[in-house]
Amino acid sequence: MLKKIDHVGIAVPNIEEALKFWTTGMQTTVAHAEEVAAQKVKVAFLPVGETNIELLEPTDPTGAVGQALQKRGPGIHHICFEVEDIRAALAHLKAQGMTLINQEPVPGAHNKLVAFVHPKSSGGILIELSQPK
Amino acid sequence: MLKKIDHVGIAVPNIEEALKFWTTGMQTTVAHAEEVAAQKVKVAFLPVGETNIELLEPTDPTGAVGQALQKRGPGIHHICFEVEDIRAALAHLKAQGMTLINQEPVPGAHNKLVAFVHPKSSGGILIELSQPK
Repeated sequence: MLKKIDHVGIAVPNIEEALKFWTTGMQTTVAHAEEVAAQKVKVAFLPVGETNIELLEPTDPTGAVGQALQKRGPGIHHICFEVEDIRAALAHLKAQGMTLINQEPVPGAHNKLVAFVHPKSSGGILIELSQPK
Repeated sequence: MLKKIDHVGIAVPNIEEALKFWTTGMQTTVAHAEEVAAQKVKVAFLPVGETNIELLEPTDPTGAVGQALQKRGPGIHHICFEVEDIRAALAHLKAQGMTLINQEPVPGAHNKLVAFVHPKSSGGILIELSQPK
């Protein structure tokens, strides 16, 4: 069902500040940046092998990432797995009794279809599934 | 400097319990399991593409993972990056003013050399570097 980890999402108060560690320290580079209005975040993707570090900066404190930052501070926010068929993956998880945040895929960064699994089904971890269009 | 994400470490109270989600739900399988006495954890690795999900169950509540579980509950504990030369990577990070938890590599799972970067240098994220022996 899972093809690879598409990205590991990290909530940061400010992408520019966070980039000091990720570029000078870890020697990665930003391949893509955009604002995802539906999620109330600005994002920057830094490729590492076949996956990416995704830095997430809230554009609105009432969004999910804004609230996570206020509640828990900066840190790893979610893991996103690429799947071949996101609707089939969601149907499988539902059939196994998992609770989904998104019953249907929604638009994510990179114009992909994405959906989140509820942390109560995944042992406290926020998990995103994504399917390239 | 970074070759790939080697694994994403997830702190769980009980690996057997966590596996229900990761095997039945996410359809991954355990490729390797061991006890890492130096880190006071049992670990299970579930491959996804070129990387792995690493489930971490504390064997002792006074260890780093045991303390993280008590403080923050289950969740994503760290990201581990594979590097070609861990001593060179640590020297580079130190030269850039980053604080290291391990000044020198220590033995990790899979008989690899590992070292942790302090979260205060990496925006609140625990980062592990690893080099295959």
